Amino acid sequence: MKSYRQELWYNIPARRGFVNITEDVEKCLAESRIKEGLVLVNAMHITASVFINDDEAGLHHDYEQWLERLAPHEPVNQYRHNGLEDNADAHLKRQIMGREVVVAVTDGKLDFGTWEQIFYGEFDGRRRKRVLVKIIGD
Amino acid sequence: MKSYRQELWYNIPARRGFVNITEDVEKCLAESRIKEGLVLVNAMHITASVFINDDEAGLHHDYEQWLERLAPHEPVNQYRHNGLEDNADAHLKRQIMGREVVVAVTDGKLDFGTWEQIFYGEFDGRRRKRVLVKIIGD
Amino acid sequence: MKSYRQELWYNIPARRGFVNITEDVEKCLAESRIKEGLVLVNAMHITASVFINDDEAGLHHDYEQWLERLAPHEPVNQYRHNGLEDNADAHLKRQIMGREVVVAVTDGKLDFGTWEQIFYGEFDGRRRKRVLVKIIGD
Repeated sequence: MKSYRQELWYNIPARRGFVNITEDVEKCLAESRIKEGLVLVNAMHITASVFINDDEAGLHHDYEQWLERLAPHEPVNQYRHNGLEDNADAHLKRQIMGREVVVAVTDGKLDFGTWEQIFYGEFDGRRRKRVLVKIIGD
Repeated sequence: MKSYRQELWYNIPARRGFVNITEDVEKCLAESRIKEGLVLVNAMHITASVFINDDEAGLHHDYEQWLERLAPHEPVNQYRHNGLEDNADAHLKRQIMGREVVVAVTDGKLDFGTWEQIFYGEFDGRRRKRVLVKIIGD
Repeated sequence: MKSYRQELWYNIPARRGFVNITEDVEKCLAESRIKEGLVLVNAMHITASVFINDDEAGLHHDYEQWLERLAPHEPVNQYRHNGLEDNADAHLKRQIMGREVVVAVTDGKLDFGTWEQIFYGEFDGRRRKRVLVKIIGD
């Protein structure tokens, strides 16, 4: 069994945003030379997500609105976590969007349906944060 | 390390529905002859889910009502994604129910608690869609 | 490829609660002697979660309030699942918080960001319930 590890860094200039990181993960997979196995891609921060969905700007706008409705940022004092911080909503939003994805590796490629793309979802940005890529297989 | 790959196809006649796919995954596991490892089961479409919960009709009705409350289908023009399409709500519902499950394989069986069953959750059906089963191990 | 399996038992005295199980998983990882691979940690019950977030009491209070708002326990007769049972809300809450986490193993350690901790989330407690730890790798 072979294994491969890489950290990807992102710095989202706003509090919230979505970035398509599929190509970055594909680069890792090529470097790993693993042909059959599993790749784990996870946010290393607890106010961010890695998820798989569509690369469509309208949908990302809908996610933004929807997450604000389910777990609003303001008023910040509605959350007990917000003593020294103001990011409780980010911890909630991340639970809906998820921490990680596991993707099959087949013939050295991400084994994806037609529209599957991997996104980094930031809910407390404006600083450098990390995504872990771990691949195991042969 | 051995690996196994299979696609399962489902065609849900309504827009939304839940199907117990545990036996289909067990068939894959038997075919793979893998005794110890992990199985990944994921929707290959971004408006569908694979999740683990109870095979109980009342609960599935509750999921349906609850998801409609959290991410209603109508009015369709509340979502920016719905230009040529009307399935934005399906992309939202799928984030709550999840894209994938990873299940332990022990002694050639799905290593499950008493009530765990794998479901395909459809949120934009009435056409053939795929689930990926990838198993790695020995 | 090596593999390791362990069940962890928890008994939460209230209906709902969060327990940091990171050390228990680390003990499993040490016992497994696996240095590179993946660890799967999943609830074996369908009214409980395993998730990764912050070990901060204010945040756990916020999760409790937020989940009650999104999927309230009462009135119990709002859910069709609640015939002989009263735990439909627990099945809903668990979908938001998730069934499982997959964590990278690097150099024999959980490959975590600074604040990542693993929690057992109970939504229908007051009895002994199990978490599965499965590790594969070399």
